[in-house]
Amino acid sequence: MIFMNIAFFNGNFLAKDDIKISPDDRGFIFADGVYEVIRWYEGFFYDMESHLSRLKRSLRELRINWPEVELLPSISMELIKQNKLENTPAMIYLQVTRGAAKRTHYFPNPEVPATIYANAWGFVPDNQYKETGIKVMLKEEIRWSRCDIKSISLLANTISFQEAYENGLKECIFVRNGLITEGSHSNIFFIIDNTLFTHPESNYILSGVTRKNVLRIAQELGIKIREEAIPENRIRFIQEAFITNTSAEIMPVIDLGGNQIGKGTPGPITGMISAKFNSGKEGLALKIVN
Amino acid sequence: MIFMNIAFFNGNFLAKDDIKISPDDRGFIFADGVYEVIRWYEGFFYDMESHLSRLKRSLRELRINWPEVELLPSISMELIKQNKLENTPAMIYLQVTRGAAKRTHYFPNPEVPATIYANAWGFVPDNQYKETGIKVMLKEEIRWSRCDIKSISLLANTISFQEAYENGLKECIFVRNGLITEGSHSNIFFIIDNTLFTHPESNYILSGVTRKNVLRIAQELGIKIREEAIPENRIRFIQEAFITNTSAEIMPVIDLGGNQIGKGTPGPITGMISAKFNSGKEGLALKIVN
Repeated sequence: MIFMNIAFFNGNFLAKDDIKISPDDRGFIFADGVYEVIRWYEGFFYDMESHLSRLKRSLRELRINWPEVELLPSISMELIKQNKLENTPAMIYLQVTRGAAKRTHYFPNPEVPATIYANAWGFVPDNQYKETGIKVMLKEEIRWSRCDIKSISLLANTISFQEAYENGLKECIFVRNGLITEGSHSNIFFIIDNTLFTHPESNYILSGVTRKNVLRIAQELGIKIREEAIPENRIRFIQEAFITNTSAEIMPVIDLGGNQIGKGTPGPITGMISAKFNSGKEGLALKIVN
Repeated sequence: MIFMNIAFFNGNFLAKDDIKISPDDRGFIFADGVYEVIRWYEGFFYDMESHLSRLKRSLRELRINWPEVELLPSISMELIKQNKLENTPAMIYLQVTRGAAKRTHYFPNPEVPATIYANAWGFVPDNQYKETGIKVMLKEEIRWSRCDIKSISLLANTISFQEAYENGLKECIFVRNGLITEGSHSNIFFIIDNTLFTHPESNYILSGVTRKNVLRIAQELGIKIREEAIPENRIRFIQEAFITNTSAEIMPVIDLGGNQIGKGTPGPITGMISAKFNSGKEGLALKIVN
């Protein structure tokens, strides 16, 4: 029997290969859509509640109307089941676009139904780098100034990440007006004088689900926190650094733009936060998937 | 007989409704692609040579490989014929994406074939506004800093244009660092002291085909030209203004962000340039479509 990848498309679960995105879809023509990536830990989704609330915010900011947005958890669960991923680390990807319509820069008038697409895949977590830490690139910001919206307008992110990738680096971190903002698909944290720093929520960063939970965990651990951007010219004062996202979770950074961080190995505070993150994953999940 | 819209997709001409874009297409997931819009004037394409050369540049900048790029003119011509648009004002839209592959921020490795999609449609040129001129909005730039690439990463453009549209304005013009750059889908020109000003080619504007031809025409007319950005705080010195793009051609602007331009009617230098543009369209075409 050939395994069939089942995806969700506009209300139906069907073979992914049978999905037909219209060339008129504004997701294809204008990048006019938003998305979420959600982690499945053999039995529960990580902080589904935050993903749902962020998705709602993205849709609201772009005025894309998906009346069934509350179905995100159940669509996700059904994709896990239909793809027999219950007992595997897996990812859910869900994208909502403004729908298919004649190409006009203004929104379709009258409104057309949003396009909803979601799929799931199993993967093997790459834990090797959590032991060694990763090296990351620094690059002058080229993205737009609404990075707070989790949109599919990601060309700047992909070409920036590609640049890192070709240099053997594991992420591209942006610098805007001299300040370190975030990565192409991660947030970044620093330890300076035993205080945890990260760029504050603003239109220059995406408010990551893992970022939010790391801030909560650090507070619970009694670590001093300052949501404040670090200027590029203060890199030499950084003792520890790590990036966060849904798939990498908490990933130590040992080199930032050619500058070794600390001793060039993952730091102790990063370790403490990671340990608490790992032990607390399921607790967070229980709020949503009973 | 029902009229069937014929489009081009990966080497074939087929009913547009039968085209199936994969949900894995990087055009759908990452806005990882480029496009061109070309005007058909009942008998010839406007400056196809410049569209082709810009498409090649966009592909080169993003390292998207479409070996058959030289087919742009013949695909365009075939779409005009198959859709029986020979004797109608029409548009060609062609989009090239990096292809369909597993979702990774880095480019597919090994490379996958680019996705090529093109279609054509007839339209009635909206000449009314050329007589009266249009009012346009001014907005702080929110786009990325590679506006020189004609990419499909256009969410910033569409939400900005929508803002203008809802205020009854016909374009959204961006201001970056205090300087007027261009519109959401047009370039902008100003007349100050009988000199024609427009933002110089840079990563902050798209090098428009009509823009380039307007500069040539102005030179032929002996008009003084300065490719130099106009600061927002010098709007009061502007005597005439117009925007350019492939569909609007040369469109007079009579109000810029609430500031009346000149007498609030299309200006004489704009008129001279328009007249020469109109009489010269076909000459330019002959270079390409023999």
